[in-house]
Amino acid sequence: MLFYDCSTAPSPRRARMFIAEKGLEIETRHISIAKGEQFSDAFRTVNPGATIPVLVTDEGTTLTENLGIAAYLEARFPEPALMGQTPDEKGEILMWNAIAEQQCGAPIAETLRNTHPSFKDRAITGPANHAQIPELAQRGAERVRAFFDLLEARLQVSGFVAGDMFSLADITTFVFVDFARVIKMRIPEENTATRAWFDAVQTRPSARL
Amino acid sequence: MLFYDCSTAPSPRRARMFIAEKGLEIETRHISIAKGEQFSDAFRTVNPGATIPVLVTDEGTTLTENLGIAAYLEARFPEPALMGQTPDEKGEILMWNAIAEQQCGAPIAETLRNTHPSFKDRAITGPANHAQIPELAQRGAERVRAFFDLLEARLQVSGFVAGDMFSLADITTFVFVDFARVIKMRIPEENTATRAWFDAVQTRPSARL
Repeated sequence: MLFYDCSTAPSPRRARMFIAEKGLEIETRHISIAKGEQFSDAFRTVNPGATIPVLVTDEGTTLTENLGIAAYLEARFPEPALMGQTPDEKGEILMWNAIAEQQCGAPIAETLRNTHPSFKDRAITGPANHAQIPELAQRGAERVRAFFDLLEARLQVSGFVAGDMFSLADITTFVFVDFARVIKMRIPEENTATRAWFDAVQTRPSARL
Repeated sequence: MLFYDCSTAPSPRRARMFIAEKGLEIETRHISIAKGEQFSDAFRTVNPGATIPVLVTDEGTTLTENLGIAAYLEARFPEPALMGQTPDEKGEILMWNAIAEQQCGAPIAETLRNTHPSFKDRAITGPANHAQIPELAQRGAERVRAFFDLLEARLQVSGFVAGDMFSLADITTFVFVDFARVIKMRIPEENTATRAWFDAVQTRPSARL
């Protein structure tokens, strides 16, 4: 297997944490987004979509999305299970993963990429250029605030995001909640259950890579 | 099990097709988005997020996202497999599902909800109101066009979206490609592989429900 990683972006961090939680050591190539290496001819040969992470499997399949990478690794290396064991667990984990992607990750990216000067004309990830629409920033911040409320209510009644066990849903949520700092948003002081959960996840070796 | 459906929206159609492809008959309640029934107290008790589809499992878990519903049903009713059997198949199916969601479904919804008068102040699905940003429409249309190109290139070399077999990735892609009509976009005439694939999927009984 061959893993294409980037230390500065949240998407590859999700895959990196998943790999570490599985206890796997995979040959890794680092692509610098700061240097624009995702647009190099060499990397575009690997992933024409110019996004990171990418996992090339032993069978030669190129997987370019976090869920694709996770599903492959979970099937090949079932232990420890990070995507659930019972049907209900599997359902809840992918449900919360989708909620975190759509209601936390997407609005953070929308806010950052439509306002920060370094993303001028780069409002959407991938090979095509799109102009920024700064008006999106307010909507994005409101949505992240609403997600923080939802997450706090959930963690008041659940040890981890998708139930009693650490899972893919915790990885996705943790990475995005942490990344909210780029739009100057942090877990509100009064969200005590979220803060306790965040601190616990942060101590895992996989969170420090 | 209990399935909450709506015949007029693409998200519940994805779950409805998945259920039909599994050959399952699940007790169903119809929620009319046209009448705003997703905001009723009764439905908000089921799903405070006010979105459809919802599946309540036999174990009593409430699943509110397409991937959550699919993962649950795939684990409980493995045949026919719609999310792959080998690790590579599982990875490719969730990869293409994510690509279709992000590069086709999301820009269609973004365009529709930010321009159509019936979505005034409803630019984002869910309980909170958000004003429309009409400037998003152009970006959305450009992204759907790019997705049509990507899909055509894929289907020129692959019988189905994620490989040789019909899968969840075909359901997601088919529903969104069909839904593109609401923003007046259709598969370009010259995209012959996509047109052949679309026509074939459209003849499946699950596509007619």
